[in-house]
Amino acid sequence: TDLPAAATKDISAAMNGVLADVFALYIKTKNFHWHMSGPHFRDYHLLLDEQSDQVFAMADPIAERVRKIGGQTLKSIGDIARTKRIADNDAGYVEPSDMLAELQEDNKNLAAALREAHNVCDEYGDIATASLIEVWIDETERRTWFLFEAGRRGDSSGH
Amino acid sequence: TDLPAAATKDISAAMNGVLADVFALYIKTKNFHWHMSGPHFRDYHLLLDEQSDQVFAMADPIAERVRKIGGQTLKSIGDIARTKRIADNDAGYVEPSDMLAELQEDNKNLAAALREAHNVCDEYGDIATASLIEVWIDETERRTWFLFEAGRRGDSSGH
Amino acid sequence: TDLPAAATKDISAAMNGVLADVFALYIKTKNFHWHMSGPHFRDYHLLLDEQSDQVFAMADPIAERVRKIGGQTLKSIGDIARTKRIADNDAGYVEPSDMLAELQEDNKNLAAALREAHNVCDEYGDIATASLIEVWIDETERRTWFLFEAGRRGDSSGH
Amino acid sequence: TDLPAAATKDISAAMNGVLADVFALYIKTKNFHWHMSGPHFRDYHLLLDEQSDQVFAMADPIAERVRKIGGQTLKSIGDIARTKRIADNDAGYVEPSDMLAELQEDNKNLAAALREAHNVCDEYGDIATASLIEVWIDETERRTWFLFEAGRRGDSSGH
Amino acid sequence: TDLPAAATKDISAAMNGVLADVFALYIKTKNFHWHMSGPHFRDYHLLLDEQSDQVFAMADPIAERVRKIGGQTLKSIGDIARTKRIADNDAGYVEPSDMLAELQEDNKNLAAALREAHNVCDEYGDIATASLIEVWIDETERRTWFLFEAGRRGDSSGH
Amino acid sequence: TDLPAAATKDISAAMNGVLADVFALYIKTKNFHWHMSGPHFRDYHLLLDEQSDQVFAMADPIAERVRKIGGQTLKSIGDIARTKRIADNDAGYVEPSDMLAELQEDNKNLAAALREAHNVCDEYGDIATASLIEVWIDETERRTWFLFEAGRRGDSSGH
Amino acid sequence: TDLPAAATKDISAAMNGVLADVFALYIKTKNFHWHMSGPHFRDYHLLLDEQSDQVFAMADPIAERVRKIGGQTLKSIGDIARTKRIADNDAGYVEPSDMLAELQEDNKNLAAALREAHNVCDEYGDIATASLIEVWIDETERRTWFLFEAGRRGDSSGH
Amino acid sequence: TDLPAAATKDISAAMNGVLADVFALYIKTKNFHWHMSGPHFRDYHLLLDEQSDQVFAMADPIAERVRKIGGQTLKSIGDIARTKRIADNDAGYVEPSDMLAELQEDNKNLAAALREAHNVCDEYGDIATASLIEVWIDETERRTWFLFEAGRRGDSSGH
Amino acid sequence: TDLPAAATKDISAAMNGVLADVFALYIKTKNFHWHMSGPHFRDYHLLLDEQSDQVFAMADPIAERVRKIGGQTLKSIGDIARTKRIADNDAGYVEPSDMLAELQEDNKNLAAALREAHNVCDEYGDIATASLIEVWIDETERRTWFLFEAGRRGDSSGH
Amino acid sequence: TDLPAAATKDISAAMNGVLADVFALYIKTKNFHWHMSGPHFRDYHLLLDEQSDQVFAMADPIAERVRKIGGQTLKSIGDIARTKRIADNDAGYVEPSDMLAELQEDNKNLAAALREAHNVCDEYGDIATASLIEVWIDETERRTWFLFEAGRRGDSSGH
Amino acid sequence: TDLPAAATKDISAAMNGVLADVFALYIKTKNFHWHMSGPHFRDYHLLLDEQSDQVFAMADPIAERVRKIGGQTLKSIGDIARTKRIADNDAGYVEPSDMLAELQEDNKNLAAALREAHNVCDEYGDIATASLIEVWIDETERRTWFLFEAGRRGDSSGH
Amino acid sequence: TDLPAAATKDISAAMNGVLADVFALYIKTKNFHWHMSGPHFRDYHLLLDEQSDQVFAMADPIAERVRKIGGQTLKSIGDIARTKRIADNDAGYVEPSDMLAELQEDNKNLAAALREAHNVCDEYGDIATASLIEVWIDETERRTWFLFEAGRRGDSSGH
Repeated sequence: TDLPAAATKDISAAMNGVLADVFALYIKTKNFHWHMSGPHFRDYHLLLDEQSDQVFAMADPIAERVRKIGGQTLKSIGDIARTKRIADNDAGYVEPSDMLAELQEDNKNLAAALREAHNVCDEYGDIATASLIEVWIDETERRTWFLFEAGRRGDSSGH
Repeated sequence: TDLPAAATKDISAAMNGVLADVFALYIKTKNFHWHMSGPHFRDYHLLLDEQSDQVFAMADPIAERVRKIGGQTLKSIGDIARTKRIADNDAGYVEPSDMLAELQEDNKNLAAALREAHNVCDEYGDIATASLIEVWIDETERRTWFLFEAGRRGDSSGH
Repeated sequence: TDLPAAATKDISAAMNGVLADVFALYIKTKNFHWHMSGPHFRDYHLLLDEQSDQVFAMADPIAERVRKIGGQTLKSIGDIARTKRIADNDAGYVEPSDMLAELQEDNKNLAAALREAHNVCDEYGDIATASLIEVWIDETERRTWFLFEAGRRGDSSGH
Repeated sequence: TDLPAAATKDISAAMNGVLADVFALYIKTKNFHWHMSGPHFRDYHLLLDEQSDQVFAMADPIAERVRKIGGQTLKSIGDIARTKRIADNDAGYVEPSDMLAELQEDNKNLAAALREAHNVCDEYGDIATASLIEVWIDETERRTWFLFEAGRRGDSSGH
Repeated sequence: TDLPAAATKDISAAMNGVLADVFALYIKTKNFHWHMSGPHFRDYHLLLDEQSDQVFAMADPIAERVRKIGGQTLKSIGDIARTKRIADNDAGYVEPSDMLAELQEDNKNLAAALREAHNVCDEYGDIATASLIEVWIDETERRTWFLFEAGRRGDSSGH
Repeated sequence: TDLPAAATKDISAAMNGVLADVFALYIKTKNFHWHMSGPHFRDYHLLLDEQSDQVFAMADPIAERVRKIGGQTLKSIGDIARTKRIADNDAGYVEPSDMLAELQEDNKNLAAALREAHNVCDEYGDIATASLIEVWIDETERRTWFLFEAGRRGDSSGH
Repeated sequence: TDLPAAATKDISAAMNGVLADVFALYIKTKNFHWHMSGPHFRDYHLLLDEQSDQVFAMADPIAERVRKIGGQTLKSIGDIARTKRIADNDAGYVEPSDMLAELQEDNKNLAAALREAHNVCDEYGDIATASLIEVWIDETERRTWFLFEAGRRGDSSGH
Repeated sequence: TDLPAAATKDISAAMNGVLADVFALYIKTKNFHWHMSGPHFRDYHLLLDEQSDQVFAMADPIAERVRKIGGQTLKSIGDIARTKRIADNDAGYVEPSDMLAELQEDNKNLAAALREAHNVCDEYGDIATASLIEVWIDETERRTWFLFEAGRRGDSSGH
Repeated sequence: TDLPAAATKDISAAMNGVLADVFALYIKTKNFHWHMSGPHFRDYHLLLDEQSDQVFAMADPIAERVRKIGGQTLKSIGDIARTKRIADNDAGYVEPSDMLAELQEDNKNLAAALREAHNVCDEYGDIATASLIEVWIDETERRTWFLFEAGRRGDSSGH
Repeated sequence: TDLPAAATKDISAAMNGVLADVFALYIKTKNFHWHMSGPHFRDYHLLLDEQSDQVFAMADPIAERVRKIGGQTLKSIGDIARTKRIADNDAGYVEPSDMLAELQEDNKNLAAALREAHNVCDEYGDIATASLIEVWIDETERRTWFLFEAGRRGDSSGH
Repeated sequence: TDLPAAATKDISAAMNGVLADVFALYIKTKNFHWHMSGPHFRDYHLLLDEQSDQVFAMADPIAERVRKIGGQTLKSIGDIARTKRIADNDAGYVEPSDMLAELQEDNKNLAAALREAHNVCDEYGDIATASLIEVWIDETERRTWFLFEAGRRGDSSGH
Repeated sequence: TDLPAAATKDISAAMNGVLADVFALYIKTKNFHWHMSGPHFRDYHLLLDEQSDQVFAMADPIAERVRKIGGQTLKSIGDIARTKRIADNDAGYVEPSDMLAELQEDNKNLAAALREAHNVCDEYGDIATASLIEVWIDETERRTWFLFEAGRRGDSSGH
């Protein structure tokens, strides 16, 4: 690539942070997908499956983008565990409404991290990475919207 | 077409009324699809998307049918606004259960309008238009059934 | 087939019992699919449709398997009615939560019947029939899991 | 629906009769599909599979149509067994030519039942149900034609 | 079929007339498709190909419908030539605008023949044949509309 | 095209002869497809449907090929009737074995006509038309083979 | 979303303006698609159908984008009628060349409105909305190009 | 693999025996497919084609399975010829009923060989190979069933 | 290959000449596709796109064929520019009718070049290359036919 | 499920161990896929992508199977990191041949873990889980075979 | 067929020779596919799989072509073993480069055999068989080219 | 377009430069694809085919984009030859490793040219063109990465 070495270093660092969060969010979304319960079981089970698929689909393009600009990606489960900013939730039972709330918060943080990475790309003129991030922010804000609206309290008629 | 001029006039009038309602119901269904909220968010968001797709799919065949018998269709947003019988709902917030109830009523009215248009076609022997309407009534009654059943009060266990 | 006559007789008997239950469970699942109501209408309507499809898909392979080992299958509605172990539910109205609970129980019984049939196959070395049953047990346990989790009581926020 | 209560009652009764026959004919066609024999085995095995698929495809639309007009459908194997007009055939062995002849008769009766149900719909102006029945009559008459022609005696050259 | 013998005779006659016209219109439409010329060559070449496909698709269902009600279909090119009402056009060169005008007239006549056949079916209560005809009239009126609009004189700017 | 005028004339004449035969054979094959009877009804009904599709698929490429070399194609049902060499069979009833035998003979004649047309193309160096004919001969010989083998007398066990 | 409240307000306003124009342009394009006439009927009928599909495909993403950033979308036909900037054309007859010219102008205005909305997004750093707009400008400029070139005067040979 | 050397040796030997039989049965089934004759020509021609495809589909998985456990597969036509247990049939003419009978016997022997190979796998705990064999036995028993039923004597009416 | 060295040399030379023309014709067809104008814009824009796709599809098979017989293909834009026989047209504006006329001529020349190359193949018995050329001549003559017919003068009604 | 509590506990433990290894092996395989280098870059890049896809596809079925028998799955990146037995490789550069060798060893260990889990299932009669494991062992042994053969030393000609 | 008896005899003989070679080459290519090794394992494993598929795809058309002209095909493994000209290679280990070289030679011989068979067809005017052979020669020369180029010695950098 | 005339001029110039390079790189990549040799033949042959497809896919969108903003595109092979900056390589033989190295350099230069064009678009606010370029830079950097990694020296074990 014709980007300067500093670009490779800083953009790779920003993108690897996002990559670790993506894996962490993927596992957490799947965790809640597997342990969902209650009258909305099937609906939320499907919702979280769709969201986990969408989160997971970011991973390979992020890593390959880092490689295209000459950087190195994350390398292992341990590497991910050390780098990620999204907290684990190993509780034995989580209320469905708490699941939705927690994922909403995590996705909001992911959007902020993506926006931050976009700034780094802008700084170095890496317009190709920036362009990819724009799509992922849109998707992340969509997941946040769904989780926010679905997380609201129902009315007395059960709707 | 070999239908008399009165047929063209009366059937076109009936079908353009339905066409305006179809656009109005489409926008309202989408409106509720976009502003849905609460624990059933995803389920109802999808339900209204499917219903809006089905409503929208009626528009082009109605308009082209009018053209085939020599009539003129609606021409603009203003034309639709003046012709439609389904009321706008511009409220800032609508309860999910109220959304379902209002759409149920609108679909019931649409079925009645289609049945009325069928009578006009029968009168003039326009069996081709009549045959299309029969399918649309079935679809409209299906939407009504779904909205009716989904609109019922939940029990104390949350089901 | 090179299996002994006793294998044909005993395996056919076990499999025809399962076949009758499969038809009975199929009709009951469709019955509840058609008469579902309440805020979860669409979600459960779809759930039971998927489950009925999966149950129905077992019927032809079971019957053809019986024929491949030289046995005779069930022959009529009357035959099914006499052979099935799953109870009819002809009630005019069933609460959604009761629908889920009843189907959960029926699927649990079906899994037990399949496991029992697997033992019969093992006894005679009919590894081909046994292999098919293993897949159906997995599917049946999946339906039971979904019905169990979806059947749990919702929390106070409506989730 | 805006149809009168009497329409719901009479049309539902007519359609549930057809629904029971559809299930009975489906099982009988499959029964003969599974126990076919002789030089035409594969050809008739496939013929009856296609016919059973076509018969089965009527069931869900019939039941959902009953629901759309506010009626209740059949609910169980027992319900079907009590309602159906098509006779069981539990014979251990049936000649292929007898299979074709019996199914031909059953399909002819089904066509008559559909035509009768169409009259009921006409009476109440339920044009949507009527429209569906028209397609099913055509299919049923096609099955009858195939069974009639295939059931004719071969010539001396074996054709 | 349970229709009376007179129905078989009269409906078959009406439908065989339509069938002959369908083949004649198909060949003429293809003829013009093959010999089209001028600035609109590709556009009209495609238009007539689409129309010929749609006309041709009527043939097999018409013939099989005649067989289902116990009638005999047309049997040969000679049979078609003797039965058809649509005139041959064997001219060496036909102006594109004349092609459009002639086909428009032929399609209008076909619609009238279909409407006439519908009356025959109505008389005998053959609702299945009638239902098929309704779709074909709609298609035929669509072809007529296209040919009418495309056949109009262009303005001075060449549009 | 850069082929001489004599090539256009002679190749067009040969190909139009084949085109007329193709339409005649198509209608006859469909005729037998519609009026087939006896124990092999479904098998032969399908066989002739496949063969008629294959025959029909030759028509458009033949006609367009004639146009590409500057010739004129057949124009109407009357034109086909005057040009074809394959005889009509308007009999009310034809034995299945006679149907197979007659079509076998017709296909053999069609192969000969194609081979003759190939010679005309060779003479003028029209290698593109010749190349198409080679494929059609192979297909025609395949139809002949099927009809020959299927037309043989069955053995005493009914096979 | 982590965008400031002013962003939600201003971007929603800009996007709702575009949304209203999109619906208005969609209906007008369909209007001309339905009432096209003259020698180019099929070609322009198809052109406007493709363009209307492309315009319509913008609507849902625009509305959902507004929701993702916390805004409210348009809610009804009346809302669209009050908000849109594209003028209705309810004339009984419009020359084809005038149709092309009017749509060209409307699309040019839509591109300008999109560019303006892009500036609003840029101001608030809403890169996800901006990214979507870039694609829609490209599509809108493509529609404008087609309408411009097709709208030019033909030469004396009719091309 | 972590299976012992004796497992590799014994399982490979058993599977190569099956592999040789698979190729031999494939060629024989194709041979009869190519030389079929009589009124059932098309039906049996297709039956044997389907069966040969199914037999052939076993070959690659068998060979690759042998490689996965560290063994060597058959290597040539000569190798197959020396290893196979299914007899060649090079007769110039074979009655259709004899074809069905011979293949029925060969498939029965293949099922026995597969069952024997399953025992070898069980002995060494090679559950992956065993699992594949279970599916192939089911398929082989299906082919045997079809050949048995189709091979039965027809009745006096030609069915 | 077992063809003589002279065959490789002469056939490669002939085919590389065709390959250069193919690229030149491809670019010119695209050039006219991009710069088309007037009332037929969309129709001719599509026509030339289809033709350019078809021309382009010849390139890889030609080059790979040269490699299969041991020759070397063209290697660069410069190589193409030096080898091609089809003239560039860099005019700023070309009338649509002139575009059609020029491409018609170019395609006619391409057909002649292909026919010439076929003669070279015939001479050396390279039947595989010859067989490919036969298909390409047919396609080229089809493009010429379309361009010829579309290039004809319209009549006074604008058709 | 009707399996005893001990089965749920022991099988869940075994399967969660496998699940952790599956995630670890997935990340490592992707790591090597991203950092591959040398003349075989594309070939091995694709090989490891296919293998990582196959490994990843095991994860959801394992976790859902644990849920179906009433157990709890792994819940987070931290949970995976603590449970997995496959070692991380965070080296900055790894030789391609070392990558192949290390993955070969890891897959061999995974096969052993699967075989061990199979024993646990056998003990408790959980035939559905056992059946799934059999397929995964076959896939794992296939990956091992590919990695073993590809990891062998090349010969002096570079093959 | 209308070809003379000598044609049937000589062409069948030539084609059966090719058919035997096709089966022999297929098994050898698969043999090398299964026993490939070294750094190029996956690449050559795939190459030989593609080539074996292409070789195998010739078999059924060759055999059916023989049947269409009235000949008899090969009938068994023994028949193939006696007729084939391609030598078996039962060696326990073959160097990858030797595999490529041997297959290159075999394919070259197959091309020569096909060219020889083409001469026989030419002699008798069997243009349909000849046309099929032309395609197969092209494919065979493609396989030879690939094997030749891939079989060349690598350079010192490992490329 | 509402962009200023200077934008049309400067952006068109920049994009036509890229377009010429795209065609030149396409031909060179194909050239190396056709003349590849050595042990990696198939792998690199496929790599360059994929890359040439990706390069080629840029051409039409670039040219149409130029047209949308009112510019003129390149018009001929000669135009491309005069405009391109990527050098021809007409050498009779090129080492595979040299092919990879040369293409790596060319792609790097193409990325720089795209980045330069992006600056021109930014200057004039042509955000639609800029958005397209961002995707192409990403693709070009991916091709460069692949060529760089594949171009590295192998180790002593042949990997």
